[in-house]
Amino acid sequence: MMDEFTLIEQIKQKTYRQQSLIKGVGDDAAVFRLYNKDTVIAVDTFVEGVHFTRETLTPKQIGYRVLAVNMSDIAAMGATPLYYLVSIVIPGSWDNESVKQIFSGMDELAERYALDLIGGDTVSGHELVIAVTIIGSVAGGKARYRHHAKPGDVVFVTGTVGDARAGLDVLLRQTKLPENATESIIYPLITRHQRPEPRVEFAQQLKHIDRVALNDISDGLANELHEIAESSHVMIDIEDAAVPISEGLQRWDIAQQFDYKFFGGEDFELVGTVSRDNFSTVQAVGVQLGVKVSEIGKVSYNRERNERVLLFRHGTWQPLLKRGYVHRSRET
Amino acid sequence: MMDEFTLIEQIKQKTYRQQSLIKGVGDDAAVFRLYNKDTVIAVDTFVEGVHFTRETLTPKQIGYRVLAVNMSDIAAMGATPLYYLVSIVIPGSWDNESVKQIFSGMDELAERYALDLIGGDTVSGHELVIAVTIIGSVAGGKARYRHHAKPGDVVFVTGTVGDARAGLDVLLRQTKLPENATESIIYPLITRHQRPEPRVEFAQQLKHIDRVALNDISDGLANELHEIAESSHVMIDIEDAAVPISEGLQRWDIAQQFDYKFFGGEDFELVGTVSRDNFSTVQAVGVQLGVKVSEIGKVSYNRERNERVLLFRHGTWQPLLKRGYVHRSRET
Repeated sequence: MMDEFTLIEQIKQKTYRQQSLIKGVGDDAAVFRLYNKDTVIAVDTFVEGVHFTRETLTPKQIGYRVLAVNMSDIAAMGATPLYYLVSIVIPGSWDNESVKQIFSGMDELAERYALDLIGGDTVSGHELVIAVTIIGSVAGGKARYRHHAKPGDVVFVTGTVGDARAGLDVLLRQTKLPENATESIIYPLITRHQRPEPRVEFAQQLKHIDRVALNDISDGLANELHEIAESSHVMIDIEDAAVPISEGLQRWDIAQQFDYKFFGGEDFELVGTVSRDNFSTVQAVGVQLGVKVSEIGKVSYNRERNERVLLFRHGTWQPLLKRGYVHRSRET
Repeated sequence: MMDEFTLIEQIKQKTYRQQSLIKGVGDDAAVFRLYNKDTVIAVDTFVEGVHFTRETLTPKQIGYRVLAVNMSDIAAMGATPLYYLVSIVIPGSWDNESVKQIFSGMDELAERYALDLIGGDTVSGHELVIAVTIIGSVAGGKARYRHHAKPGDVVFVTGTVGDARAGLDVLLRQTKLPENATESIIYPLITRHQRPEPRVEFAQQLKHIDRVALNDISDGLANELHEIAESSHVMIDIEDAAVPISEGLQRWDIAQQFDYKFFGGEDFELVGTVSRDNFSTVQAVGVQLGVKVSEIGKVSYNRERNERVLLFRHGTWQPLLKRGYVHRSRET
């Protein structure tokens, strides 16, 4: 492996994109100036063999994906991602070119959204670990929290859910392919796993709405609904038939569809709640940006009820369990 | 290992200390509001067996130390540390109690400086990796950069240098103990390794000085001097006899002293340059805070000269090489 300094020279951005940046890479810390904005920050950690594998992702896709996942956290706060820092542990089994590909995958997405890589740390170790810290900004008081749901709200979701996990399972040969599964069926699912698109613009365009509860779907729709319900101290009622799934996913049998759409996770769509009055604005944003928006249920409150999230399916209400996507356990 | 959620519940701060914090742990991202301030951010990554070992540090000391190292980066920018996020990869060989001790060590220092743990990520892996992201604030335009040195400046250093590395070597039995090395000689050195003190207040109190170039000594005094000289496009002349070392370190032979003080690193003292006129203010801050301040040389400029940093020693000027502390190579 080339030494740390040479690598940093090579992955360092030649020019920065954000005017608010005062100092990027090259001192003890980076410096930026966000006057009259709230700052939003998150970190996500990815370990090879736990969170991703080279079986299903190229090094460039790994980079693209880890940044997309972090940007999705910022989107789910209604904020604009601006900067990121990368802490990477590189094992001897990874060559320079592959490591540079990881950064190139991040930069492809960063360039599209004008993010700047403003710091980081490159160290050697036994397994590949990538921790990305991401920083965004949002107008003062306009961050979107999962605890903002209120009884009477419409529950909505963007895009379709379950695709990413189905795509992963296809790549890992852990699912039986449907009959007549042509490439045009399979490829979009795989793409959802390899190149997820964070819903940054969509969340930003909700800015004129006073109150939106928002989560990104990282651990499965069921899990995110539970998080909103628990944080907001409300109940949520979902209609199974209203949950949007792609044409591709509809080729799988019903039981498998059910599993993917509620527990698949890693689609990085947004799930939110908003007052009935403001739902038309959410729909209009969807139309404007070409993002499908589906009403999938409503927020309620009933202090007698034990179950946080109920699902209407096959003519009856049943509890929707929280169980989310569990990362493949690793061989130790 | 207990599951991630249980661990996060246990390490989560019960109350937050910073008024500027709007949302800590518990949503997709943390949110804070720093109006009319510049934000300073850095990340440092530590791998067990590369950056630290349980041979020389207890789990609590590991936590204390990783946060101190990050706070030192913020101090070196003249900023006030406010928040931190922790990304931790936990191998099966670490039990819950030890992991909690790591966080308890961080919190001990965080409490003292009123920092808040506002986010993070806990994942499983094969080796312990701790990446800390730290955020601080500084008055607009008042960040201290290493590229701000100017010819004619005084070069100064806080405290004494070389102790931390000597303490580490003592613990690892990689140095021959001086004769009559009593506990009162050895213990302070070990403490410098195990519980480094970031120079936060000292750097803050320089705020009335217009221009200070500042680095913290993480990779050895020689390395930091080179970084200042290179970034500022200047030369630096250091007087060997003026570089402050502790009473303890003076027990070692001259060659070993030399190695520790210039290349030891990880003392987390500050090295800086400031105009001759403002040096008295730096000295006054030292007196006020009880921090030793030593003038060790000056900044010069000579376009004919090849060597960035010269050292006056044994009656002659000689190049001071950049070579810094190199982490113990690991067995792979």
